[in-house]
Amino acid sequence: MKYERPHLRGLAGYVPGAQPNAPSVKLNTNENPYPPSNAVFLKLASLSADILQRYPDPLAQQFRAAAARLHNLSPDHVIATNGGDELLRLALATYLDPGAPLGVLTPSYRLYSVLAAMHDAPLAAVPLESDWSLPADTADRWNASAAPLAIVTNPHAPSGTLLSVAGLDRLARTFKGVLLIDEAYIDFVDPGLCHRTSELVREYPNVLLLRTLSKGYSLAGLRLAYGLGEPDLIAPMLFKTKDSYNVDTISQLIGAAALDDARGAASTWEAVRGSRSHLARALATLGFECHPSQANFLLAKAPIGEGLPSAETLYRALMARGVYVRWFDEDRLRDKLRISVGTPEENAHLVRALELELIA
Amino acid sequence: MKYERPHLRGLAGYVPGAQPNAPSVKLNTNENPYPPSNAVFLKLASLSADILQRYPDPLAQQFRAAAARLHNLSPDHVIATNGGDELLRLALATYLDPGAPLGVLTPSYRLYSVLAAMHDAPLAAVPLESDWSLPADTADRWNASAAPLAIVTNPHAPSGTLLSVAGLDRLARTFKGVLLIDEAYIDFVDPGLCHRTSELVREYPNVLLLRTLSKGYSLAGLRLAYGLGEPDLIAPMLFKTKDSYNVDTISQLIGAAALDDARGAASTWEAVRGSRSHLARALATLGFECHPSQANFLLAKAPIGEGLPSAETLYRALMARGVYVRWFDEDRLRDKLRISVGTPEENAHLVRALELELIA
Repeated sequence: MKYERPHLRGLAGYVPGAQPNAPSVKLNTNENPYPPSNAVFLKLASLSADILQRYPDPLAQQFRAAAARLHNLSPDHVIATNGGDELLRLALATYLDPGAPLGVLTPSYRLYSVLAAMHDAPLAAVPLESDWSLPADTADRWNASAAPLAIVTNPHAPSGTLLSVAGLDRLARTFKGVLLIDEAYIDFVDPGLCHRTSELVREYPNVLLLRTLSKGYSLAGLRLAYGLGEPDLIAPMLFKTKDSYNVDTISQLIGAAALDDARGAASTWEAVRGSRSHLARALATLGFECHPSQANFLLAKAPIGEGLPSAETLYRALMARGVYVRWFDEDRLRDKLRISVGTPEENAHLVRALELELIA
Repeated sequence: MKYERPHLRGLAGYVPGAQPNAPSVKLNTNENPYPPSNAVFLKLASLSADILQRYPDPLAQQFRAAAARLHNLSPDHVIATNGGDELLRLALATYLDPGAPLGVLTPSYRLYSVLAAMHDAPLAAVPLESDWSLPADTADRWNASAAPLAIVTNPHAPSGTLLSVAGLDRLARTFKGVLLIDEAYIDFVDPGLCHRTSELVREYPNVLLLRTLSKGYSLAGLRLAYGLGEPDLIAPMLFKTKDSYNVDTISQLIGAAALDDARGAASTWEAVRGSRSHLARALATLGFECHPSQANFLLAKAPIGEGLPSAETLYRALMARGVYVRWFDEDRLRDKLRISVGTPEENAHLVRALELELIA
């Protein structure tokens, strides 16, 4: 295209997982398999369209107050964004000059590298260890590249591995740039692990947490996420780089209601954790190897053996049966399927479909 | 802030007009003074929160189809955005390399220069003539600066002046970059003028129209706008530079309902036009000079005379009375108030407040 910026010409945009019209089972984009909490239904039902006539609060103060209450922080620690995608984009726009490298781990959420390419920034990529753990010299390598910003997904996607708070603490202390911890899947972590990161925000001026209502709160369609960080870190995004009215009125109201009723959502997290264990066992029985996951998905290595279909073949065969999972044409992922944990019925449907493919 | 990009440090963000909690009369941010159409009320009332569980359609196909029907274009000519702000930002991100100049007219919507500063792009600024018309050499001057992108607000803000389609046609033909015509206020143009610009989209591969539902459709709180352009011009924004799920599910559904019921909104445009004439006459009686406006606001030059308050003084005095209008501390605007056209009652309230200030 004649008018497109030169560096965009060769760039392939991020391609989200398919949103088929009527799948039998949709386990490809990590949505919560349960509906939002009652508080969300009630709040939406209470809204009348006349609230849409005026501009929304540009600073989303009511929502930020709800997030602050939930995390025992102040509203100044919070920025509300139009989904996690916006916070990721804002972090690049705010902390990373084009040309300077973005620190990432590989493999990870492909959007990070697409955002970097769009921003004309190279990657300082550190490959994860073979067990998906963090190499001990990660911060040193990012520092050696002078990366002003790095992103860590925790729990990691697509493996589901959880880095400990102590490990994140070390990373934040050693890394010289802004450390964005993408906690999109944090709500599904076993509460027995006592994994709490909001203290990192108070301790380190360079830590930015990304939280989203898309997964844990079953609100992917609402587009609402938030960042947590020291007020000094948050302010330039809040007052300069975000679009003036980036979160609409309905999202602000529903989002505040959802966070105020976090217990309602938490019952779905518990159900997902139960199904996650159950599904991992069922997949193991079929010969899949699943790394332990603290997220609402499993990364399952397809069984290998004469006559057995590859992960890619399974992915396509499942799709033909109306069962959607995700397959990534990427190093270390080509032999695996990423399967969102669904309801017990959806998981059973998937397992039956896999049985048919593996035994046929 | 230590981590902020150097070029952002001195930058002051865009400051939207105040959103006071309980103003007597709010005529400062150009919202439609009437509520959204019945179709919007019905659509919102019909929604249940379970639609929020899944991600929205990343391409907003239903909404884009509605916009295409309205403008007699194809859905490929349309991109849906999270308010007009997002389309403006995307245009810079997609067509303008940092360092290359953004063509603008002065004065105009201050957000343009804020976006340019954020993008690290200088301005190729062409001052409007004293009657707010376009200098004949505007395109030549932008071309001389090699501006890859220029923005024209039409009707112009804050003057309300309408450039003719013939004038825009000349500009599009002569300007070598992308011409973004910000039509935020187009719905309030007198239909007797037969001002239709969608043909420009078919004729010129470099024309991008910005339309918003914030003003004409009384949906400022929804955050929904769209761009119209040749599919080749739209594609890089649609598939590369926009956030994957930039418009939420509720906005897509309500937006489609609103456009399908454009006649419902059109009755408010007619009412606003009637009030606009009436208010202009009332202000003239008080000694204000109003340039003819085709938008839903008036730029009113305060009467000058011994003992009479300045525009800034009037602005603050009105605010003290709970009447909000806009005053810009900018060349050519300091002696004027920008007043959104309200309901007849709101306008009468404003006029009474001005009378008290001018006679007191």
